[in-house]
Amino acid sequence: MKQFQTPRGTNDILPKDIEKWHRIEDVVRQFCMLYDYKEIRTPIFEDTGVFKRENDSSDMVNKEMYTFTINGKDSLTLRPEMTAGVVRSFVQHKMFGEGDLPAKMYYIGPQFRYERPQKGRQRIFHQFGVEVIGVKNPMLDVETIALGYSIVSALGLSELKVLLNTLGDDESRNNYKVALKEHFSKGIDDMCGDCKRRLDQNPLRLLDCKVDHDTEIMRTAPKMGDYLNKESKEYFDAVCNGLDALGIPYEIDDRLVRGLDYYTDTVFEVVSTNDQMGSQSTVFAGGRYDGLVEYFGGPELSGIGFAMGIERLIIALEGEGIDLSEDESLDAYILCLSEKASLEALKIATMLRAAGYTCERDYLNRSFKAQFKSVERKNAKFAIILGEKDLENGTVTIKEIATQEQKVVASEDIVDAMDELNDNEEHECTCGDECTCGK
Amino acid sequence: MKQFQTPRGTNDILPKDIEKWHRIEDVVRQFCMLYDYKEIRTPIFEDTGVFKRENDSSDMVNKEMYTFTINGKDSLTLRPEMTAGVVRSFVQHKMFGEGDLPAKMYYIGPQFRYERPQKGRQRIFHQFGVEVIGVKNPMLDVETIALGYSIVSALGLSELKVLLNTLGDDESRNNYKVALKEHFSKGIDDMCGDCKRRLDQNPLRLLDCKVDHDTEIMRTAPKMGDYLNKESKEYFDAVCNGLDALGIPYEIDDRLVRGLDYYTDTVFEVVSTNDQMGSQSTVFAGGRYDGLVEYFGGPELSGIGFAMGIERLIIALEGEGIDLSEDESLDAYILCLSEKASLEALKIATMLRAAGYTCERDYLNRSFKAQFKSVERKNAKFAIILGEKDLENGTVTIKEIATQEQKVVASEDIVDAMDELNDNEEHECTCGDECTCGK
Repeated sequence: MKQFQTPRGTNDILPKDIEKWHRIEDVVRQFCMLYDYKEIRTPIFEDTGVFKRENDSSDMVNKEMYTFTINGKDSLTLRPEMTAGVVRSFVQHKMFGEGDLPAKMYYIGPQFRYERPQKGRQRIFHQFGVEVIGVKNPMLDVETIALGYSIVSALGLSELKVLLNTLGDDESRNNYKVALKEHFSKGIDDMCGDCKRRLDQNPLRLLDCKVDHDTEIMRTAPKMGDYLNKESKEYFDAVCNGLDALGIPYEIDDRLVRGLDYYTDTVFEVVSTNDQMGSQSTVFAGGRYDGLVEYFGGPELSGIGFAMGIERLIIALEGEGIDLSEDESLDAYILCLSEKASLEALKIATMLRAAGYTCERDYLNRSFKAQFKSVERKNAKFAIILGEKDLENGTVTIKEIATQEQKVVASEDIVDAMDELNDNEEHECTCGDECTCGK
Repeated sequence: MKQFQTPRGTNDILPKDIEKWHRIEDVVRQFCMLYDYKEIRTPIFEDTGVFKRENDSSDMVNKEMYTFTINGKDSLTLRPEMTAGVVRSFVQHKMFGEGDLPAKMYYIGPQFRYERPQKGRQRIFHQFGVEVIGVKNPMLDVETIALGYSIVSALGLSELKVLLNTLGDDESRNNYKVALKEHFSKGIDDMCGDCKRRLDQNPLRLLDCKVDHDTEIMRTAPKMGDYLNKESKEYFDAVCNGLDALGIPYEIDDRLVRGLDYYTDTVFEVVSTNDQMGSQSTVFAGGRYDGLVEYFGGPELSGIGFAMGIERLIIALEGEGIDLSEDESLDAYILCLSEKASLEALKIATMLRAAGYTCERDYLNRSFKAQFKSVERKNAKFAIILGEKDLENGTVTIKEIATQEQKVVASEDIVDAMDELNDNEEHECTCGDECTCGK
């Protein structure tokens, strides 16, 4: 006898909780279809080099990766995020040469980071995200933000804040980095160890520091806005105009630099302001990247994307009291009140399922009372009873739970009988708003 | 510049191929709902002990696992199959104590085996499968086979063969193993190395041998049927009767023992007889297991399940010439024929998407001809044209591709205009067969 648990920082998603995942995934797929994004699925692991880029200063790449080798072969890493894999795939399959650019792709799936688990942070967690590769157009940045925003709004989230910033193009960003380095050099001795490292590696990330956040030297730091060249400024203004035109409220946060080193121009973070979120308040976040396609051996093409943590989204939804569960009723539950009923129940269940009715049955030959408890627990609309007499006569007894009415029909007519009984119920028209069918 | 490829034995599922995956997953989810199975998702990796059971003689466990440690901690393994993880979860979350038994669960997701890649065999591959835990009833075995059979039939597969066998209960199987051991001991020196190992470890697996398959000693081996006790025989007869009652054709194959050591009683394998399948012809396969729940520290409960390889299913479907692609048309494509049109296109696209129309637009300010190529490639039903004049007048030009008719409407009326144009198209009623709406 062995007792095993899910490994630390990982969870089972149980049948009783799966509905909310399905509901979120349905909304994601529906909106991605409306926006003409297509799904891509890359492998769970990649060559480590796909994720471990030179000069990457992020914790994710340097401390949190599940990296391993099998049989002394190449080093593999469980994907800590999807952007690198999607760009690798875009280049490997030469998607830049086929059909229309941009390639608009989305993904949903598990990601892996070896972190200290806490609320909203798991070692195996799930992300929905998009990558749009091949075109640099501020309207695309707006559309990308709008897609994420529409999805979380459609799910019911309202306590949201969109934070927006630009990191400018290479020229603007390099000038700004020089200014930051100069500014912080003066006081670096009093700053934290991470900041000391960042000063040389990527001074932008100094602005991200959780430790030195409220110091004088941080408050007086130069602002990106003052270092943007004309192109970068116009690009950012166009993004802001687009968001204004769609009525998406946002705040410009000139400290927003994001954790990954590859971003250029637009970066954004959509946070929940609900107090259930604790320190992990980001619902989705992303930005534009200019150099990644080239880095992976492709042409010089820009991309933009975001990632949304599904576990965090669920915390945010639950924080706002939004219930994602759906109607879980069963059409029919078959009661077997004779040992010989089991084969007959199999046949009837199969007929009903083939006709599109959700159906379950007793498998244990339990007491009538116990079987009727199952009817209730499963919230079945109809109880279909196979008693001794029914078996003798080749009939079944159908009991409608709502009305408590029951009738006896020949076994082979079960589908017709169910159709008739269901027609008498209120007709749930799926024709849409314009329906004139009169039901 | 780095050039990376998907690791050996792994694949990207690209946007151009994703539709068939969606179609298969939709059918799977629909049938699982009809049969009252609920999805479970277990972690991609588990403690190695979950998969590496004592005395397990299978290649999967002994040679093909992706096992690794991170930071010198416990040994983890990427799941090579789902049954062990689902049973671990069933026990961990004490599902035996809640609601109705059996717990009927299904899963879809990636699995990992370090094997030599070949057609229909990948290192990362995908399985749909079910586990039904808590009840031993031959009708449940039949239902399980019927569910898998219904799904592949609904997808269109017809070149199928259901192979069925029983391994009996513990008593029957132990008697049979003794007989097998005695029979093969006489000739074991002439048999392959694997067989020599199997003779002691699990003589049942001798029947599986690919090398010694056609030898005299194999042909004269004792048959399971002759060693079944009364209970095992009755159980198997009931399974056969159930399949007969549902009209599912099957062949009894008394050499069928399956690759995993934990099976008892019913085992089955559904193979495609299409010649595209090569040596990997199994579409789905499974069986009953009596000891696993106890092994994982739970009560003495029986289970049954099967797994279906999605990649192999796709090969079988393609082998039979079945096309899973769906209508990929877009409702509207917006052409931007002026640099200033880009913001207006964003607004119109957003309005249309919010109203439920799938929509894409030009982002590159290309020539009219190039943009119209996109209308064709995307198979758009309507082209929505934003010309210089339209921008001046606050209008758009809608062109219906099928009729080549076009009209000019105010931008803010675009949704109404599309609704009207779509109503004039043939009404696709979704009321179902009984619809009397007259359209």
